[in-house]
Amino acid sequence: MNSLKPLNNIRIVLCATSHPGNIGSTARAMKTMGFQNFYLVNPQHYPDPQASALAAGATDVLDNAIVTNTLSEALVGCAFAIGLSARKRNLSHEIVTPRIAAQQGLQIAQNQQIALVFGTEMSGLSNAELDCCQLLAMIPANPEYSSLNLAMAVQVMCYEMRMHALEQDVLELKALKNDALRGNRDAAPGGIELANNEDLERFYSHLEETLLHIGYLNPAAPKKLFERLRRLYARARLEKEEINLLRGILTLTVTPKKHSKY
Amino acid sequence: MNSLKPLNNIRIVLCATSHPGNIGSTARAMKTMGFQNFYLVNPQHYPDPQASALAAGATDVLDNAIVTNTLSEALVGCAFAIGLSARKRNLSHEIVTPRIAAQQGLQIAQNQQIALVFGTEMSGLSNAELDCCQLLAMIPANPEYSSLNLAMAVQVMCYEMRMHALEQDVLELKALKNDALRGNRDAAPGGIELANNEDLERFYSHLEETLLHIGYLNPAAPKKLFERLRRLYARARLEKEEINLLRGILTLTVTPKKHSKY
Repeated sequence: MNSLKPLNNIRIVLCATSHPGNIGSTARAMKTMGFQNFYLVNPQHYPDPQASALAAGATDVLDNAIVTNTLSEALVGCAFAIGLSARKRNLSHEIVTPRIAAQQGLQIAQNQQIALVFGTEMSGLSNAELDCCQLLAMIPANPEYSSLNLAMAVQVMCYEMRMHALEQDVLELKALKNDALRGNRDAAPGGIELANNEDLERFYSHLEETLLHIGYLNPAAPKKLFERLRRLYARARLEKEEINLLRGILTLTVTPKKHSKY
Repeated sequence: MNSLKPLNNIRIVLCATSHPGNIGSTARAMKTMGFQNFYLVNPQHYPDPQASALAAGATDVLDNAIVTNTLSEALVGCAFAIGLSARKRNLSHEIVTPRIAAQQGLQIAQNQQIALVFGTEMSGLSNAELDCCQLLAMIPANPEYSSLNLAMAVQVMCYEMRMHALEQDVLELKALKNDALRGNRDAAPGGIELANNEDLERFYSHLEETLLHIGYLNPAAPKKLFERLRRLYARARLEKEEINLLRGILTLTVTPKKHSKY
């Protein structure tokens, strides 16, 4: 998918991380969202077995991390850096939601390198580190408890970037559109065939006939109740095969199987 | 903020969680996004010191978690359950992105209880658990490595819910009430009440009984066929009143009205 290519231009930068577990969890979060460029500025413990354990299937991302002494070194070649902040700052940085940061960042990442920069677990980004960033993103957390785990914050930012990238591709959008409209069923091999109009009408006739037979519908005024049932099945967007299942029930409603034990 | 009120109608349900650390991390993820209703179905270790350690400032959410033996018990009173899946399923559950799931879920959470349901770390939700859900959400992860940590998946889902709640103001939600999600139902004055989990389960029991009675289901192996029917009705998101209509049909299927002319 071409729309995901800009993710290769995005690096995740962790500054002075205290807990190696968070470094491992970050590697895992990155890889699940399709990110691979990992930078560690002055980590307290790296490499570390706890980091490797928590990286799970993303040890490649972890092991390829680039360690630097300063944030400036980690940003070499970057055209844009987005800092993540858990708290409001006094400085006149522009603060946006992760969604808006993703939009702005991805636009630049089409052609140039960018960075997402995360501070320490305890105090976030220092003012000096913030000065290296062009944009500040803040996850709109619960004001009564806004302390996301570091790797969780990375997961959310990477997720937003990936979602935005996927939305960009025109074909992807078309696919998503169908998902929303059709309720994106999981196609069995060969795909699922929705019932067509004739199938549906045959089913509705069969249903009406059966409901008259069992005395559910009043033959004098069957309309209102039946309309409600039609609407219910319309919402389900029946598949061809499901029509067959339902009509099988209708047939047996009128003529139950002789060998039924019930 | 009034727009965040529906979050109180949303419960996070973890099924058969293996690692207590994930339970603690989930509590923290929940609280940072403003969620508090935590259900644990058959957890392997709870309470546990590791869970408490990772819950950090969210020990209140952790300590107030409700433990149940079955998923059905955890869903008592819920009108809608969204299951999270990491993999494509063969059966025809509706699968959407977390963003679309958040939209649909929050709309119902305006007035009724809903649940986000997460499976085990190793294998996700079982088919039986999936059958208790009306919608499946899938985080569009890297197909080469799609294994998000459990608590990370909770963080992403809760983040989407919170973002969507913040984006909506009350009036906008009211306007939305009639469209997309409910398949364009005509909202009766006073709104539509969706069937809750118990209504649904009673309907499914009644349906199964009736289908056995007419000889449609094979008493020796009723499972597969019945699952398909459950999924069909799950997609329709049945209203309370529709359940009554359908159960009326089932009753007459077994005992047709004497005065029927057919």
